[in-house]
Amino acid sequence: MSVKVVVGKDILAVNRKRAEDLRARFKQMGIKVVNILSSPGAGKTSVLEATIPKLQKVRAAVIEGDVATTRDAERLSHLGIPLVQITTLGACHLDASMVWKALEEMDLSRVDLLFIENVGNLICPASFDLGENLRVVVLSVAEGTDKPAKYPAAFLSSQVVLINKTDLLPYTDFDLKRVLGEVRAMKPDMRTFTISCRTGEGIDKWVEWLEEWVREAQ
Amino acid sequence: MSVKVVVGKDILAVNRKRAEDLRARFKQMGIKVVNILSSPGAGKTSVLEATIPKLQKVRAAVIEGDVATTRDAERLSHLGIPLVQITTLGACHLDASMVWKALEEMDLSRVDLLFIENVGNLICPASFDLGENLRVVVLSVAEGTDKPAKYPAAFLSSQVVLINKTDLLPYTDFDLKRVLGEVRAMKPDMRTFTISCRTGEGIDKWVEWLEEWVREAQ
Repeated sequence: MSVKVVVGKDILAVNRKRAEDLRARFKQMGIKVVNILSSPGAGKTSVLEATIPKLQKVRAAVIEGDVATTRDAERLSHLGIPLVQITTLGACHLDASMVWKALEEMDLSRVDLLFIENVGNLICPASFDLGENLRVVVLSVAEGTDKPAKYPAAFLSSQVVLINKTDLLPYTDFDLKRVLGEVRAMKPDMRTFTISCRTGEGIDKWVEWLEEWVREAQ
Repeated sequence: MSVKVVVGKDILAVNRKRAEDLRARFKQMGIKVVNILSSPGAGKTSVLEATIPKLQKVRAAVIEGDVATTRDAERLSHLGIPLVQITTLGACHLDASMVWKALEEMDLSRVDLLFIENVGNLICPASFDLGENLRVVVLSVAEGTDKPAKYPAAFLSSQVVLINKTDLLPYTDFDLKRVLGEVRAMKPDMRTFTISCRTGEGIDKWVEWLEEWVREAQ
């Protein structure tokens, strides 16, 4: 059986308008924005920990989104970059208004690239534009091969898939070839990177592509 | 910064009423109901695959919830039990009305225990009572030690935590002792089981407890 879903169209329309305002503001500031989505524990914060110290050509800042606790922001505090934690107190996604408010607490005058780490949720954040220029979805190999097909909105709305925790590949039945095939069948121009934040595998290639993207997008 | 959340109180109140109707209906039918929550890929379906064939004293049925695809129901179809798939077409959780409708498609006359596998999401399903008697949250060791603190509603509203994929413990930095300590600090009477659906470790103990619970709860 399938269930008809009542979508909060007003909420989404209000968010879309606010996201366009954000996008215009970021453009004026010369800042590129990356919105990072994933399930809980797929490694969004680890991706930032592995990526940011390797950036040589662009200066980064981070907005951290979490339902509760400031643990992710604490993990990144040693990086010495502009960093704000949004605690949603239960809400299942970030929206454009939350990001707008977070900007009041950040000095982005010397920043080229703003990462927004969304709440750990592979469903709801997909519906909320945050004014980003690039959406990245992180998939852990421990989550299983079927995730792109089962959570299509997150993947279809992203331009990049980071397949993380490849160090666990020998110990799982994750079928990397099949996932890559399914992702490309869903969206032929999807960029995919296989990485391990634990071992560093694949990080250089992703960082190189990201820096290039920031410069090209300007 | 913290963000004030506007909760859809009307939606939750309507759901609560419908859930109480469901609970009364299940009681009249002599059926115990378990609502299973987790992140995408923590192993809810694998728990059912490992658990149901081992049940000797109770007869099971399953309602499968997914955003898209019927893959989970297909995985369970060989079990030869009453089974209905709810595809939410994008919605981030099951609600009591969806379960009520699913019951129309099931013959539960020879069933003692109904499992409801919720949508893979550690946030939204926590707010929606499905008329269950027991809520179980599955946590994969690949997700990391910080999940109970970061997703408190799912854990605080559950009575059982299944820590799954213990076969991956040697390859992750998951701190089992710390997680068990944090969970018990959050909720002293929480039942916890460490299991691996892949190797079968811990499954017998969990199944034994579950069968005992079904009989005691009657």
